[in-house]
Amino acid sequence: MKARLLSFSLMLISLVTIAQEKLTYENIRVNAERLEQRIQEYAKFGINEKGEPYRVAYSQGDIEGRAYFMELMKNAGLDVHIDFAGNIIGKREGKNSSKKPIAFGSHLDMVPRGGNYDGTLGSFTALEIIEVLNEHNITTDHPLEIMIFQNEEGGLVGSRALTGNLKTEALTQKSASGLTLEEGIRAIGGDPGRLGEVIRKKGDLAAFLEIHIEQSKVLESQGIDVAIVEGIVGIEDWDITVTGMANHAGSTPMNDRQDALIAASKLVLAVNEVVRSYDGAQVGSIGKISVPGGAPNIIPGRVEMSLQMRDLSTEKIMKMFGDIEKRADEIAKSTNTTVEFKNLNLGTTPTIASKEIQDKMERAAQSLGISFIKMQSGAGHDVQEMAALGPIGLIFIPSKEGISHNPKEYSSPSQMAKGADLMLHTLLSLDKH
Amino acid sequence: MKARLLSFSLMLISLVTIAQEKLTYENIRVNAERLEQRIQEYAKFGINEKGEPYRVAYSQGDIEGRAYFMELMKNAGLDVHIDFAGNIIGKREGKNSSKKPIAFGSHLDMVPRGGNYDGTLGSFTALEIIEVLNEHNITTDHPLEIMIFQNEEGGLVGSRALTGNLKTEALTQKSASGLTLEEGIRAIGGDPGRLGEVIRKKGDLAAFLEIHIEQSKVLESQGIDVAIVEGIVGIEDWDITVTGMANHAGSTPMNDRQDALIAASKLVLAVNEVVRSYDGAQVGSIGKISVPGGAPNIIPGRVEMSLQMRDLSTEKIMKMFGDIEKRADEIAKSTNTTVEFKNLNLGTTPTIASKEIQDKMERAAQSLGISFIKMQSGAGHDVQEMAALGPIGLIFIPSKEGISHNPKEYSSPSQMAKGADLMLHTLLSLDKH
Repeated sequence: MKARLLSFSLMLISLVTIAQEKLTYENIRVNAERLEQRIQEYAKFGINEKGEPYRVAYSQGDIEGRAYFMELMKNAGLDVHIDFAGNIIGKREGKNSSKKPIAFGSHLDMVPRGGNYDGTLGSFTALEIIEVLNEHNITTDHPLEIMIFQNEEGGLVGSRALTGNLKTEALTQKSASGLTLEEGIRAIGGDPGRLGEVIRKKGDLAAFLEIHIEQSKVLESQGIDVAIVEGIVGIEDWDITVTGMANHAGSTPMNDRQDALIAASKLVLAVNEVVRSYDGAQVGSIGKISVPGGAPNIIPGRVEMSLQMRDLSTEKIMKMFGDIEKRADEIAKSTNTTVEFKNLNLGTTPTIASKEIQDKMERAAQSLGISFIKMQSGAGHDVQEMAALGPIGLIFIPSKEGISHNPKEYSSPSQMAKGADLMLHTLLSLDKH
Repeated sequence: MKARLLSFSLMLISLVTIAQEKLTYENIRVNAERLEQRIQEYAKFGINEKGEPYRVAYSQGDIEGRAYFMELMKNAGLDVHIDFAGNIIGKREGKNSSKKPIAFGSHLDMVPRGGNYDGTLGSFTALEIIEVLNEHNITTDHPLEIMIFQNEEGGLVGSRALTGNLKTEALTQKSASGLTLEEGIRAIGGDPGRLGEVIRKKGDLAAFLEIHIEQSKVLESQGIDVAIVEGIVGIEDWDITVTGMANHAGSTPMNDRQDALIAASKLVLAVNEVVRSYDGAQVGSIGKISVPGGAPNIIPGRVEMSLQMRDLSTEKIMKMFGDIEKRADEIAKSTNTTVEFKNLNLGTTPTIASKEIQDKMERAAQSLGISFIKMQSGAGHDVQEMAALGPIGLIFIPSKEGISHNPKEYSSPSQMAKGADLMLHTLLSLDKH
């Protein structure tokens, strides 16, 4: 634990030595009050009988909220349309139409019982940046494009459509709203029959930027303003089956048991030890466990568990898995059980944020007096899909108590504004070069 | 483990020093061949399409088997009837009708996918003892009573009726056959409306004896002929709830988790350690575990488990539980979780076998050259209900590989005969004094 805090601190110190760079439009800042006010206004959409927001993708709250957001985009002078996948796209011309657009955005949908900042922050920050550019009569060289992806929480549905990763087979899946993806896309103004037409290709974007709440409390607990995200972790999932021998829990002596749950418990602890034994921000979790047919009077004969590991390096994940397999062998031997692992082949590969954009973010943060750390994102975001189209950058701001996917999500106006300022100046820096 | 083997061995040696006693009717023995042949004959009742026996209480196989058994009882000169609870009672007069009967028996029903020895052995041994007494023209002083209890596997249903522990409310419960207890009792010739008339009171029996397969492999692995059972364990059940904090398994760093499954796994191992740290044959098991709402990508916020402990001493169970609570406190502190225990008040109190009967069994075993150990029964048996009516004795014989409640149950003819001889001579010794 301490090792990790230390490495963050060292990074912080070392980065101060990077040469500061004069910002273009040095004095412009986002309007913190407007950003806050609009997010509060948006929080009123889809309030349910419990007084909580319900803007799950394709729900009435989502549809009404999107209409409001599009209205704001139009008022900000953007050329707005809903693409065939149901994403909201808002364009602003640049001085040089031959340049690829710099895109930025996030999503407006939420998980059931979600909060008002996850996705919403990134969407309104994108809009706020347009407002500030307007107020200062700035026309960028690159065209700009706000992208508000639909149904991020349902599995990056909208952003996957843009990269061609949304397969036709997936359209029949039910979404949290109760509608299938196909029905949902229609409900928000898309056309599921024409998804192929929204696909963009590698190099189509000069860059994609996103800002998001951290969804953990590293920033808050360290009192840091923002995280410059180095990448989005890859994920590997396994099913684990531990097999012992079910037997009578009354008549089977303690020394004559093949208790699958004893073995499984040792393995849960071994997984935790292995993952923590590596330096870095990798995580490993056993989120599910069950004894099929278990009863208080039967010694567990079989335990089924999940194992999920995430890191920016798939190689590191597989190295940790190798260690876990070794520990599992020892446990199996000592408990007279067997342990089997089955990789579910759900794995996502890590997404690395552009080093150039990270560098620009660092310099901009220093010029703006914004404190930062580097961090990897343990959660998935639309930006990871955009990495297929161009270089990406991702900024995190503090989440109060690390809470997300919960009505209690909160980030303060000044926390949001610092992140938005960093995104604004990163964009301006990208545009200049 | 070794400590336990050692204590058994020491017991074995020390008991050899008990003065041998000349047996009454020293030379009579059960007919091993007849006992085996009848058990094999009985195994043919209720064979299903898989070729396995199906004699669940109240099933056709049970009903037909009982009719066959009653026929054998009658042929052996017993005065046979089915009581209102559906138990088969067979009486044999003694020389002295003022003496209380010595009763013995077991059950003929099985669990679904059960075997041919659990209960059946005790029932046919009781019948065999009558046959041997007949062949040697022995009339005991005490009246004898064979009791074949119905639906033992459903929760000692028939024997509880005799002690008044079968409540009227229970009659509507479904049994494994699909019939309610009420319907089942009717199906086998009882009268559920007259259960009150079968209740016997404390002191009504001079003794009750039962012989049963061990349902574990202690005897087999040690090469011992029989176990003289010291008592039937009491059982205490708890629900355990471990509460941590559910969180995102991707974005929550390893050092900032309140993982309820880590705590639960430590507790599973602590329970095992505590139970094994005591001398004796106590057992403790966690047979069920779950993470409600668990998913591979969510850190477990809550784990629910069962805890069951069994021992001949309730005091010892509660002392172990106190140790477990202490360990749970330490685990909760170190993992930033809480652990709650809820006693389910299902507890059964231990049943202690009559010391006098145990002594008689020991002496008879020595005279017969039958090796024995003392053992506690971790499983429940009809004999424990009979303890409310008089002193009880219970003998175990080896189960092959410890298998029970399975078509593979097996005990050899000579193993059965040794147990039956011990029961016969224990009965004769009890009758004499």
